[in-house]
Amino acid sequence: MQSQLKVYNTLTRQKERFVPLNAPFVGMYVCGPTVYGPAHLGHARSAISFDIIFRYLKHLGYQVRYVRNITDVGHLERDGDTGADKVQKQARLEALEPMEVVQRYTNSYHRDMALLNVQAPSIEPSASGHIPEQIAMIQQIVKAGLAYESCGSVYFDVAAYNKTHHYGKLSGRIIEDMLTGTRSLSGQQEKRSPLDFSLWKKATPEHLMRWPSPWGEGFPGWHIECSAIAKKYLGPKFDIHGGGIDLLFPHHECELAQGQVACHTEPAKYWLHNNLITIDGQKMGKSLGNAITLAHLFQGTHPLLNQAYSPMVLRFFILQAQYRGMLNFSNEAFHAARSGYLKLMNGLKALEELTYPEDGEEDINQDLVVEIKKHCDSCHEAMNDDFNTAQVIAALFGLLKTINALRSRQVFPHLLGRTAFDQLKDTYVSFVKDVLGLYQKSNIPTTALLDILLKLYNQAKSRKQYDQVDAIRAQLKALGISLQDTPTDVQWSYVE
Amino acid sequence: MQSQLKVYNTLTRQKERFVPLNAPFVGMYVCGPTVYGPAHLGHARSAISFDIIFRYLKHLGYQVRYVRNITDVGHLERDGDTGADKVQKQARLEALEPMEVVQRYTNSYHRDMALLNVQAPSIEPSASGHIPEQIAMIQQIVKAGLAYESCGSVYFDVAAYNKTHHYGKLSGRIIEDMLTGTRSLSGQQEKRSPLDFSLWKKATPEHLMRWPSPWGEGFPGWHIECSAIAKKYLGPKFDIHGGGIDLLFPHHECELAQGQVACHTEPAKYWLHNNLITIDGQKMGKSLGNAITLAHLFQGTHPLLNQAYSPMVLRFFILQAQYRGMLNFSNEAFHAARSGYLKLMNGLKALEELTYPEDGEEDINQDLVVEIKKHCDSCHEAMNDDFNTAQVIAALFGLLKTINALRSRQVFPHLLGRTAFDQLKDTYVSFVKDVLGLYQKSNIPTTALLDILLKLYNQAKSRKQYDQVDAIRAQLKALGISLQDTPTDVQWSYVE
Repeated sequence: MQSQLKVYNTLTRQKERFVPLNAPFVGMYVCGPTVYGPAHLGHARSAISFDIIFRYLKHLGYQVRYVRNITDVGHLERDGDTGADKVQKQARLEALEPMEVVQRYTNSYHRDMALLNVQAPSIEPSASGHIPEQIAMIQQIVKAGLAYESCGSVYFDVAAYNKTHHYGKLSGRIIEDMLTGTRSLSGQQEKRSPLDFSLWKKATPEHLMRWPSPWGEGFPGWHIECSAIAKKYLGPKFDIHGGGIDLLFPHHECELAQGQVACHTEPAKYWLHNNLITIDGQKMGKSLGNAITLAHLFQGTHPLLNQAYSPMVLRFFILQAQYRGMLNFSNEAFHAARSGYLKLMNGLKALEELTYPEDGEEDINQDLVVEIKKHCDSCHEAMNDDFNTAQVIAALFGLLKTINALRSRQVFPHLLGRTAFDQLKDTYVSFVKDVLGLYQKSNIPTTALLDILLKLYNQAKSRKQYDQVDAIRAQLKALGISLQDTPTDVQWSYVE
Repeated sequence: MQSQLKVYNTLTRQKERFVPLNAPFVGMYVCGPTVYGPAHLGHARSAISFDIIFRYLKHLGYQVRYVRNITDVGHLERDGDTGADKVQKQARLEALEPMEVVQRYTNSYHRDMALLNVQAPSIEPSASGHIPEQIAMIQQIVKAGLAYESCGSVYFDVAAYNKTHHYGKLSGRIIEDMLTGTRSLSGQQEKRSPLDFSLWKKATPEHLMRWPSPWGEGFPGWHIECSAIAKKYLGPKFDIHGGGIDLLFPHHECELAQGQVACHTEPAKYWLHNNLITIDGQKMGKSLGNAITLAHLFQGTHPLLNQAYSPMVLRFFILQAQYRGMLNFSNEAFHAARSGYLKLMNGLKALEELTYPEDGEEDINQDLVVEIKKHCDSCHEAMNDDFNTAQVIAALFGLLKTINALRSRQVFPHLLGRTAFDQLKDTYVSFVKDVLGLYQKSNIPTTALLDILLKLYNQAKSRKQYDQVDAIRAQLKALGISLQDTPTDVQWSYVE
């Protein structure tokens, strides 16, 4: 299978033609959330970025196995080798068992992702559910002489690895610079070098999440879960490894090194990284204390927000930038996204209501046909150019001009000819709904519309327009609503 | 903490006062689904039965840790020790990796449960995610001399166990009868007795789901997962063990034996079992080929169904019987459930619209006050009598008479006095919404109501009733919908 898709590979620092290892199959691994708090805008950007990639690969005809993990153990504060486990610390705050915290925030993450129309990955494995696999991989690294046990913990020996491989290859960091810039922290003396990272950590007596291992009771380091899980479900080498750019170092650099040692190959062919959402140019994060959660956004309850925005508006906001581009939070940008989203939806609605006339005159406007083809081609070219959703949206707005002209009857479908009309409709609908994953979501409450109808009913009654009274009553009855007149008012109730 | 709650304990075959081991904490373990196909009515009954128990325990003020597992490995065909793993067999049929099957049906189970307003358990652990814990427990049983290795598998020695304990205690089966009734099946020669059950199974070369163990590569038996998971999250002894009555033997009998040997205690104080949903008196099951799935029911796409029924109607249908009672599928019963559900919802709507008058006359109708108190007390008494939701619904219908009289102004709130009015409202609303978990779910599409409004708009225009035209336009605008007049029609679109 061939395609024109090019992707930016962080490993080679260039856009490359996408050639899967075993087409038509594609294996994709993406680092999922650490489930110790509600999801925020940053989580949404990562999930939506790889959702777009998942959707477009399927759109191209690939059979994609998409693995995204749940980190429920081993992710320590400051992404380091000391400090409390993030999940366990939250469990103490909420007076819950750690796995109750994991369940609570996994559930809320799933609810949020469903609202954002993010498709579920093919497999969603948890770190705590893959302890034997992680231990086995650590044993392989120890056996290769590139990890050492120290005080019941096991560390990856970066200096030894770097003798035959290149630590820093993925992130572009230079090991000598990193050594110069690193203070020797207290409590890390059990490591030979500050650059070494933990594969297994000895559990202190009060540590709740613990398992037996060849090195005593403990828990896995943060990086080994992704290597072990990816290998189990995608094999030692797979096509795409994804995640936020904030994970590039140390997390992905460590994963690459672990895979190289345990499986004798770099784990992924293409390494893709989404950019972050910033606030005033700063990274957003729970641990940074500046996160706007999705609940904040959907309910308008954060001091930085002027109003609430719906999940679909957030999705549109994120897609307005290519996934590697900068994206800064502002109310103005969200307001513009809302406006753009509604315009796209009105186009969708108009197209779904339009059909090509059976016996229209064939008086084709060639300029219009050429323009439609240009915008349709643009949709594909933009996605093939490293998933440039910003350009896709621009092309869809190009098509929207014609759709609006069709809608207001300034242009008639037969002026396009059937081929151009079908191309317009197919491209617009499939790119909006299937590729970008945007859909019409009415936020209008049923009761608000019913209230308007009941007012009209009362007016008709007082004006003695009984044909209208009866018509409203009958049409609502057909929908399962019965009206009861009272001396002062009208009430409604559900009927069969 | 004290309560009047009594529960039927399968272990003692009687209703017992519910006294938790460590009030106000309650630990509850329930056997969840084997995720190899879509959920059917039987899954809904079990999940809703224990959802009601979870909700009511919380309503009484208990702090409940509710653990419900996901069986994703080790459940073999015919619930036995031979035959294919159900998940792996389905994976072959769908040409997927077993964990993709697990993910697919776990996701669809979660979606269905959310539609049924079943609250998520506190922790939802999977069998494959707890391999070390299961191996550790098997080792304890081997060490106790009550399990033996044979051809790379490990079996529980029922006869040896029965010398000092009572195998059959929970299910009431008699070991001699079981031995007489069991044929010695081919392929089971590695067991000392047909009653022995597997704790660990050796993996054949083509078996995909496999882990290393002290007995070679293999996978856990079906029963050990529940014992290991319950012990990990609820401790060696906890309050309630639940599940469908079809799991009583062998599954729960085996769990009790495993817990007894590994933890030196019966695992649960109270064993609760929900009854099944039958079709023509037969058990419903995927493996029996007669299952009506939830998707069938919600879409009306099963040959036995006359029409579709909503999730809330199914919930009401199930709650019309006490959880241990018989419940047979029929279209008539579903139709009656729909009618009853709508009546309850109209009562909820009426109450939510009613407020106690600020300065009403106090001309209290004592008979009505007594009747309200009687029905409110009935709600509590029924739930305290082994969660008798059928009786709760009867009491709510008792209250509904007064609510309907209030609604139609035949009775005025002040005739009840504030105390009785508040009791009526609080009890009805909290039992319908919080305890029974029923809520108003309008199935009326926004577009159907909009269509009626647009017709009225057109009529008003043709009748030149421009005040009405303007009023409709303005009210819709306030909801984010703008109307565009065309020469022949009116169109609507979303606006900011």
